[in-house]
Amino acid sequence: MSVTAAEGFVASGLHAGIKKSRPDMALLATDDGARVTCAAVFTQNLFCAPPVQLDRELLAASGGTASAVIVNSGNANAGTGAAGLADAKAMGAAAAAAMGIAAGKVLVCSTGIIGTPLPMDVILPAIPTLASQRSRDGGAAAAQGILTTDHRPKEAVIRGDGWTLGGMAKGCGMIAPNMATMLAFLTTDAAVPRETLQAMLKAASDRTFNTLNVDGATSTNDTAMVFASGRKGAPGDLDGFGRALEQVCRDLTMLMAKDAEGMTKIAHLTVIGAASEGEARIAAKAIAENNLVKCSWYGSDPYWGRLLAAAGSAGVAMDVERTAVSYGGIRVAEGGVGIPHDAQALTEHMLGEEFSIEVALGVGSASARVIGIDLGPGYIKENSVTS
Amino acid sequence: MSVTAAEGFVASGLHAGIKKSRPDMALLATDDGARVTCAAVFTQNLFCAPPVQLDRELLAASGGTASAVIVNSGNANAGTGAAGLADAKAMGAAAAAAMGIAAGKVLVCSTGIIGTPLPMDVILPAIPTLASQRSRDGGAAAAQGILTTDHRPKEAVIRGDGWTLGGMAKGCGMIAPNMATMLAFLTTDAAVPRETLQAMLKAASDRTFNTLNVDGATSTNDTAMVFASGRKGAPGDLDGFGRALEQVCRDLTMLMAKDAEGMTKIAHLTVIGAASEGEARIAAKAIAENNLVKCSWYGSDPYWGRLLAAAGSAGVAMDVERTAVSYGGIRVAEGGVGIPHDAQALTEHMLGEEFSIEVALGVGSASARVIGIDLGPGYIKENSVTS
Repeated sequence: MSVTAAEGFVASGLHAGIKKSRPDMALLATDDGARVTCAAVFTQNLFCAPPVQLDRELLAASGGTASAVIVNSGNANAGTGAAGLADAKAMGAAAAAAMGIAAGKVLVCSTGIIGTPLPMDVILPAIPTLASQRSRDGGAAAAQGILTTDHRPKEAVIRGDGWTLGGMAKGCGMIAPNMATMLAFLTTDAAVPRETLQAMLKAASDRTFNTLNVDGATSTNDTAMVFASGRKGAPGDLDGFGRALEQVCRDLTMLMAKDAEGMTKIAHLTVIGAASEGEARIAAKAIAENNLVKCSWYGSDPYWGRLLAAAGSAGVAMDVERTAVSYGGIRVAEGGVGIPHDAQALTEHMLGEEFSIEVALGVGSASARVIGIDLGPGYIKENSVTS
Repeated sequence: MSVTAAEGFVASGLHAGIKKSRPDMALLATDDGARVTCAAVFTQNLFCAPPVQLDRELLAASGGTASAVIVNSGNANAGTGAAGLADAKAMGAAAAAAMGIAAGKVLVCSTGIIGTPLPMDVILPAIPTLASQRSRDGGAAAAQGILTTDHRPKEAVIRGDGWTLGGMAKGCGMIAPNMATMLAFLTTDAAVPRETLQAMLKAASDRTFNTLNVDGATSTNDTAMVFASGRKGAPGDLDGFGRALEQVCRDLTMLMAKDAEGMTKIAHLTVIGAASEGEARIAAKAIAENNLVKCSWYGSDPYWGRLLAAAGSAGVAMDVERTAVSYGGIRVAEGGVGIPHDAQALTEHMLGEEFSIEVALGVGSASARVIGIDLGPGYIKENSVTS
């Protein structure tokens, strides 16, 4: 019940029939229907889905407050145009009506296949049941209802000095392979001003969700939001609350990484020595998205030449003579040339499910981190057909 | 004998022992050892290999002329630093000595694994034999000697009004998966001024080799060069010669595409309606490198939503309301929404080994083309271990 661990929230989840048999709808709401502070970050994709457009509008109109969010999985309601926006509005309005709260206070999220109209004939009839089942115990059901190709629900909770912060997420990367989308919903009973909460969520997302790179693709529906009921008052240590927010986001990120489609290896990649933080991020992204690099991770092969080849074509400054590459702290190349190293220790490090890699570009002092996923047959198997 | 089809060239190829059993060395030279005009384009990767550095220096020093190029496959001599540069120089010097021509007139290319020193103990002893076997009939052997993981040799030839233009290539994309590199060697007996030849090769490469995108990776060793012996004098129709040069490059490009590792489908992707040609290229590259798109190609799945999702996150201007997507001329989406279409005809088009895709961004009139390759299990199988 992590998403309802904080005081003031209820949730529910059920199978409406969008998917064959797995849960496909979820509701998260304040226990009294009142609006509370809500901060959110959305996909930067220009081809964003109607529910993302709707939520942006609703939050702008409400000054960053909301009473609930209704979610469906199995269909992203993306590539559906004006009809899709009308469907999203109808879904939110039906949820508001079922809970007896004002329309326009219910946010809407969808995740699943792109380009197919939402099956409103199964969604609308399920909403009254979904609303009636909402409770403090419903967090686990909600965490199930938002999943698409995920193998496991993803929940995290942290308790601070008086306040609680909890969350649930779904997704297998920046874009969850078959189905588009990473979604994360957090709740807290701490009272945090909206601007502060928004800044904290943005910073935490950049350092956690946005460092996960399964396949370089940015979803049409990515959304992370945090609701703050304020029931427990302002945190005594606001910075501590910010760190907790980042930690919950990090926990959810690692749960997504470990559930990435076809994943067998997770690479914690750090690029150092870049001319700027922007260039460090570009290089880290280029390396983590390079299919030759990803295949070598799948094969537990410390092929450092591919890392430098990927960095060298990333369009950022690099001084080959000053480069260095390490796996698990074991330096394997310097100045663009292989050097003697403990091959046995290296092999052992690479056989783990998670390994760390550091690439030094040799031109400055900026750095960036990214969580990369290997590329194995499982990914292809899950993505060569639409559903 | 395509690379020796033009008058004035000889070639040879043999197995030196860098690879277990397949041919791994080749030599292409003028038949009299004289320097001739040589234009070349090289990888833009900052982590470029010592032989690329050497050839750039030699061509700059010689005013764009050379007598020969010696090539080895199985080892890229990349990530080998100062020792690698010395090895490349020694390889070229040995070839020059064996042919009795001036040192510094022999270019050097290497292709294969990165980060391992060139096995000079097997390369140097093979060079006298390689030189003694060079002949007009040796083109086919040379075309074999430059291959790495290629399944087939790649040759093309065009005969013009008096002149002949021929070439050979190796590679499975911008970076040939296991082994780094795309290499192409062209010869002609036409007399074409160096600056003109260089400009023609650059333009032809941009329109052919550089449109092939197997995995988005830019090799450490990519090289294309054309030697012009001038034996047949200046072409009567210089523009016609330029078109022939582009056609030979295009033929070699398609031979590489059809031999791409793990390839089962080739997508001829055109992005239209972009704000600028640069943005069109960025969008086309983003789509062709998107693993979700590539997996859908493998599955013959016309999942247009993934194309727009890839374009929408490419960082270029796109007006969703004015977008359109077609497969094989069959319009499947307009304004970001699916539209009725001939599903039977679409399925038939997608089942072919090659299919065409057009994505309209809806903001301008610029366009770009790219040849994309699907992502299937074969690619992973060939790239999860170093060799």
